[in-house]
Amino acid sequence: MIEFVLDGRSKVNTYVQLVRQVKQALRVGLLEPGDQLPKVREVAQSLAINPNTVLKAYRELELEGLAEGRPGRGTFVKGTLAGDSLANQAELRADLVAWLHRAQEAGLSEEDVIALVETTLRATLTGPAPQETV
Amino acid sequence: MIEFVLDGRSKVNTYVQLVRQVKQALRVGLLEPGDQLPKVREVAQSLAINPNTVLKAYRELELEGLAEGRPGRGTFVKGTLAGDSLANQAELRADLVAWLHRAQEAGLSEEDVIALVETTLRATLTGPAPQETV
Repeated sequence: MIEFVLDGRSKVNTYVQLVRQVKQALRVGLLEPGDQLPKVREVAQSLAINPNTVLKAYRELELEGLAEGRPGRGTFVKGTLAGDSLANQAELRADLVAWLHRAQEAGLSEEDVIALVETTLRATLTGPAPQETV
Repeated sequence: MIEFVLDGRSKVNTYVQLVRQVKQALRVGLLEPGDQLPKVREVAQSLAINPNTVLKAYRELELEGLAEGRPGRGTFVKGTLAGDSLANQAELRADLVAWLHRAQEAGLSEEDVIALVETTLRATLTGPAPQETV
Protein backbone atom coordinates (compact mmCIF):
# COMPACT_ATOMS: atom_id res chain seq x y z
CA MET A 1 0.00 0.00 0.00
CA ILE A 2 1.34 3.41 -0.93
CA GLU A 3 1.69 6.02 1.80
CA PHE A 4 1.24 9.58 0.60
CA VAL A 5 3.48 12.39 1.82
CA LEU A 6 2.66 16.04 1.31
CA ASP A 7 5.17 18.80 0.81
CA GLY A 8 3.57 21.82 2.43
CA ARG A 9 6.30 24.11 1.11
CA SER A 10 5.82 22.95 -2.48
CA LYS A 11 4.03 25.20 -4.92
CA VAL A 12 2.67 22.07 -6.62
CA ASN A 13 -1.07 21.43 -6.21
CA THR A 14 -1.89 18.82 -3.62
CA TYR A 15 -3.82 16.61 -6.04
CA VAL A 16 -0.92 16.80 -8.51
CA GLN A 17 1.43 15.65 -5.75
CA LEU A 18 -0.84 12.65 -5.08
CA VAL A 19 -1.06 11.73 -8.78
CA ARG A 20 2.70 12.03 -9.14
CA GLN A 21 3.36 9.80 -6.14
CA VAL A 22 1.10 7.07 -7.51
CA LYS A 23 2.74 7.28 -10.92
CA GLN A 24 6.21 7.08 -9.44
CA ALA A 25 5.18 4.07 -7.34
CA LEU A 26 3.85 2.43 -10.52
CA ARG A 27 7.09 3.19 -12.32
CA VAL A 28 9.30 1.62 -9.68
CA GLY A 29 6.97 -1.32 -9.05
CA LEU A 30 5.86 -0.34 -5.56
CA LEU A 31 2.30 -0.48 -6.88
CA GLU A 32 1.05 -3.16 -9.28
CA PRO A 33 -2.21 -3.86 -11.07
CA GLY A 34 -4.78 -5.11 -8.57
CA ASP A 35 -3.31 -3.20 -5.62
CA GLN A 36 -5.77 -1.08 -3.73
CA LEU A 37 -5.12 2.62 -3.28
CA PRO A 38 -5.65 4.03 0.22
CA LYS A 39 -9.26 4.88 0.98
CA VAL A 40 -10.20 8.46 0.17
CA ARG A 41 -11.39 9.16 3.68
CA GLU A 42 -8.21 7.80 5.28
CA VAL A 43 -5.93 9.82 3.01
CA ALA A 44 -7.95 12.95 3.67
CA GLN A 45 -7.76 12.39 7.42
CA SER A 46 -4.08 11.50 7.65
CA LEU A 47 -2.98 14.42 5.44
CA ALA A 48 -5.61 16.84 6.78
CA ILE A 49 -6.90 17.67 3.31
CA ASN A 50 -10.31 17.79 1.67
CA PRO A 51 -11.61 14.39 0.47
CA ASN A 52 -12.46 16.06 -2.86
CA THR A 53 -8.75 16.63 -3.43
CA VAL A 54 -8.09 12.89 -3.10
CA LEU A 55 -11.09 12.12 -5.31
CA LYS A 56 -9.75 14.51 -7.94
CA ALA A 57 -6.39 12.72 -7.92
CA TYR A 58 -8.01 9.28 -8.19
CA ARG A 59 -10.29 10.47 -10.99
CA GLU A 60 -7.30 11.73 -12.93
CA LEU A 61 -5.61 8.34 -12.54
CA GLU A 62 -8.81 6.67 -13.76
CA LEU A 63 -8.96 8.96 -16.79
CA GLU A 64 -5.39 7.97 -17.63
CA GLY A 65 -6.32 4.28 -17.41
CA LEU A 66 -4.06 3.67 -14.42
CA ALA A 67 -6.76 3.05 -11.81
CA GLU A 68 -10.39 2.03 -11.57
CA GLY A 69 -13.07 2.59 -8.99
CA ARG A 70 -14.97 -0.47 -7.78
CA PRO A 71 -18.31 0.62 -6.30
CA GLY A 72 -18.42 0.09 -2.57
CA ARG A 73 -14.88 -1.28 -2.44
CA GLY A 74 -12.50 1.52 -3.35
CA THR A 75 -10.00 2.42 -6.05
CA PHE A 76 -7.62 -0.14 -7.50
CA VAL A 77 -4.54 0.01 -9.67
CA LYS A 78 -5.25 -1.05 -13.24
CA GLY A 79 -2.24 -0.11 -15.34
CA THR A 80 1.49 -0.02 -14.89
CA LEU A 81 4.29 2.35 -15.78
CA ALA A 82 7.10 -0.06 -14.97
CA GLY A 83 9.67 -0.53 -17.70
CA ASP A 84 12.07 -3.35 -18.54
CA SER A 85 14.61 -2.06 -16.06
CA LEU A 86 12.39 -2.85 -13.09
CA ALA A 87 14.23 -6.09 -12.32
CA ASN A 88 17.42 -4.10 -11.80
CA GLN A 89 15.95 -1.68 -9.31
CA ALA A 90 15.94 -3.63 -6.05
CA GLU A 91 19.71 -3.54 -5.63
CA LEU A 92 19.88 0.10 -6.72
CA ARG A 93 17.23 0.99 -4.17
CA ALA A 94 19.12 -0.82 -1.41
CA ASP A 95 22.32 1.04 -2.36
CA LEU A 96 20.46 4.33 -2.30
CA VAL A 97 18.98 3.64 1.13
CA ALA A 98 22.49 2.85 2.42
CA TRP A 99 23.74 6.11 0.91
CA LEU A 100 20.95 8.05 2.64
CA HIS A 101 21.87 6.53 5.97
CA ARG A 102 25.52 7.51 5.44
CA ALA A 103 24.38 11.05 4.63
CA GLN A 104 22.33 11.25 7.81
CA GLU A 105 25.21 9.90 9.88
CA ALA A 106 27.45 12.55 8.33
CA GLY A 107 25.16 15.19 9.80
CA LEU A 108 23.29 16.26 6.68
CA SER A 109 19.82 17.59 7.32
CA GLU A 110 16.89 16.50 5.19
CA GLU A 111 17.16 19.74 3.24
CA ASP A 112 20.90 19.19 2.75
CA VAL A 113 20.20 15.71 1.36
CA ILE A 114 17.55 16.98 -1.04
CA ALA A 115 19.84 19.79 -2.24
CA LEU A 116 22.73 17.37 -2.72
CA VAL A 117 20.55 14.88 -4.61
CA GLU A 118 18.90 17.47 -6.84
CA THR A 119 22.08 19.36 -7.72
CA THR A 120 23.80 16.06 -8.53
CA LEU A 121 20.86 14.84 -10.62
CA ARG A 122 20.80 18.10 -12.57
CA ALA A 123 24.54 17.99 -13.22
CA THR A 124 24.66 14.28 -14.08
CA LEU A 125 21.45 13.54 -15.91
CA THR A 126 21.03 16.65 -17.98
CA GLY A 127 22.61 17.57 -21.21
CA PRO A 128 22.15 21.02 -22.74
CA ALA A 129 18.44 20.45 -23.34
CA PRO A 130 15.69 21.15 -20.77
CA GLN A 131 15.03 18.13 -18.59
CA GLU A 132 12.85 16.78 -15.81
CA THR A 133 14.21 18.24 -12.60
CA VAL A 134 12.82 20.69 -10.13
CA MET B 1 29.43 29.18 -12.02
CA ILE B 2 25.98 27.66 -11.64
CA GLU B 3 24.23 26.36 -14.74
CA PHE B 4 20.46 26.61 -14.60
CA VAL B 5 18.22 23.79 -15.84
CA LEU B 6 14.51 24.24 -16.48
CA ASP B 7 11.88 21.58 -16.04
CA GLY B 8 9.32 22.36 -18.71
CA ARG B 9 6.94 19.73 -17.31
CA SER B 10 7.05 21.18 -13.82
CA LYS B 11 4.12 23.19 -12.55
CA VAL B 12 6.56 25.31 -10.55
CA ASN B 13 7.06 28.90 -11.73
CA THR B 14 10.23 29.43 -13.75
CA TYR B 15 11.56 32.14 -11.45
CA VAL B 16 10.91 29.91 -8.43
CA GLN B 17 12.91 27.13 -10.12
CA LEU B 18 15.84 29.54 -10.59
CA VAL B 19 15.72 30.76 -6.98
CA ARG B 20 15.57 27.18 -5.73
CA GLN B 21 18.56 26.11 -7.81
CA VAL B 22 20.68 28.97 -6.47
CA LYS B 23 19.65 28.17 -2.89
CA GLN B 24 20.48 24.49 -3.33
CA ALA B 25 23.87 25.39 -4.82
CA LEU B 26 24.51 27.64 -1.78
CA ARG B 27 23.49 24.84 0.54
CA VAL B 28 25.86 22.28 -0.96
CA GLY B 29 28.69 24.77 -1.44
CA LEU B 30 28.62 24.87 -5.23
CA LEU B 31 28.17 28.63 -4.90
CA GLU B 32 30.02 30.74 -2.33
CA PRO B 33 30.01 34.41 -1.33
CA GLY B 34 31.71 36.45 -4.02
CA ASP B 35 30.78 34.11 -6.86
CA GLN B 36 29.09 35.76 -9.80
CA LEU B 37 25.69 34.54 -10.93
CA PRO B 38 25.25 34.03 -14.68
CA LYS B 39 24.41 37.23 -16.55
CA VAL B 40 20.69 37.86 -16.90
CA ARG B 41 20.89 38.10 -20.69
CA GLU B 42 22.82 34.84 -21.02
CA VAL B 43 20.41 32.91 -18.79
CA ALA B 44 17.45 34.31 -20.71
CA GLN B 45 19.01 33.31 -24.01
CA SER B 46 20.15 29.83 -23.05
CA LEU B 47 16.83 28.90 -21.42
CA ALA B 48 14.71 30.81 -23.95
CA ILE B 49 12.89 32.76 -21.25
CA ASN B 50 12.09 36.41 -20.62
CA PRO B 51 14.96 38.39 -19.02
CA ASN B 52 12.42 39.78 -16.54
CA THR B 53 11.96 36.26 -15.17
CA VAL B 54 15.67 36.03 -14.39
CA LEU B 55 15.63 39.54 -12.93
CA LYS B 56 12.73 38.57 -10.70
CA ALA B 57 14.66 35.56 -9.39
CA TYR B 58 17.78 37.62 -8.73
CA ARG B 59 15.75 40.32 -7.00
CA GLU B 60 14.21 37.73 -4.71
CA LEU B 61 17.68 36.45 -3.82
CA GLU B 62 18.76 40.04 -3.10
CA LEU B 63 15.73 40.59 -0.86
CA GLU B 64 16.69 37.48 1.09
CA GLY B 65 20.22 38.79 1.54
CA LEU B 66 21.75 36.01 -0.52
CA ALA B 67 22.90 38.07 -3.52
CA GLU B 68 23.72 41.65 -4.42
CA GLY B 69 23.72 43.53 -7.69
CA ARG B 70 26.86 45.48 -8.55
CA PRO B 71 26.00 48.22 -11.07
CA GLY B 72 27.50 47.52 -14.45
CA ARG B 73 29.07 44.24 -13.33
CA GLY B 74 26.27 41.80 -12.54
CA THR B 75 24.84 39.92 -9.58
CA PHE B 76 27.07 38.30 -6.98
CA VAL B 77 26.52 35.82 -4.18
CA LYS B 78 26.54 37.48 -0.79
CA GLY B 79 25.26 34.95 1.74
CA THR B 80 25.53 31.23 2.26
CA LEU B 81 23.21 28.43 3.26
CA ALA B 82 25.93 25.86 3.83
CA GLY B 83 25.84 24.08 7.16
CA ASP B 84 28.49 22.33 9.22
CA SER B 85 28.05 19.12 7.28
CA LEU B 86 29.47 20.65 4.10
CA ALA B 87 32.90 19.09 4.65
CA ASN B 88 31.30 15.65 4.52
CA GLN B 89 29.54 16.15 1.24
CA ALA B 90 32.28 15.63 -1.35
CA GLU B 91 32.53 11.88 -0.77
CA LEU B 92 28.75 11.52 -0.58
CA ARG B 93 28.42 13.36 -3.88
CA ALA B 94 30.99 11.09 -5.53
CA ASP B 95 29.14 8.02 -4.24
CA LEU B 96 25.87 9.38 -5.57
CA VAL B 97 27.36 10.07 -9.01
CA ALA B 98 28.66 6.48 -9.10
CA TRP B 99 25.19 5.23 -8.14
CA LEU B 100 23.62 7.26 -10.95
CA HIS B 101 26.01 5.76 -13.46
CA ARG B 102 25.14 2.25 -12.25
CA ALA B 103 21.46 3.10 -12.64
CA GLN B 104 21.99 4.31 -16.18
CA GLU B 105 24.01 1.20 -17.04
CA ALA B 106 21.16 -0.92 -15.63
CA GLY B 107 18.88 0.61 -18.24
CA LEU B 108 16.93 3.03 -16.08
CA SER B 109 15.61 6.04 -17.91
CA GLU B 110 15.93 9.50 -16.45
CA GLU B 111 12.31 9.32 -15.32
CA ASP B 112 12.94 5.89 -13.74
CA VAL B 113 15.87 7.34 -11.80
CA ILE B 114 13.86 10.31 -10.55
CA ALA B 115 10.98 8.04 -9.49
CA LEU B 116 13.36 5.68 -7.71
CA VAL B 117 15.12 8.53 -5.92
CA GLU B 118 11.94 10.33 -4.90
CA THR B 119 10.07 7.25 -3.68
CA THR B 120 13.15 6.21 -1.69
CA LEU B 121 13.60 9.69 -0.21
CA ARG B 122 9.94 9.80 0.79
CA ALA B 123 10.11 6.38 2.43
CA THR B 124 13.45 6.94 4.14
CA LEU B 125 13.49 10.58 5.20
CA THR B 126 9.93 11.15 6.25
CA GLY B 127 8.26 10.38 9.48
CA PRO B 128 4.52 10.83 9.96
CA ALA B 129 4.74 14.63 9.62
CA PRO B 130 4.57 16.50 6.29
CA GLN B 131 8.01 16.88 4.75
CA GLU B 132 9.91 18.39 1.88
CA THR B 133 9.52 16.05 -1.07
CA VAL B 134 8.17 16.08 -4.66
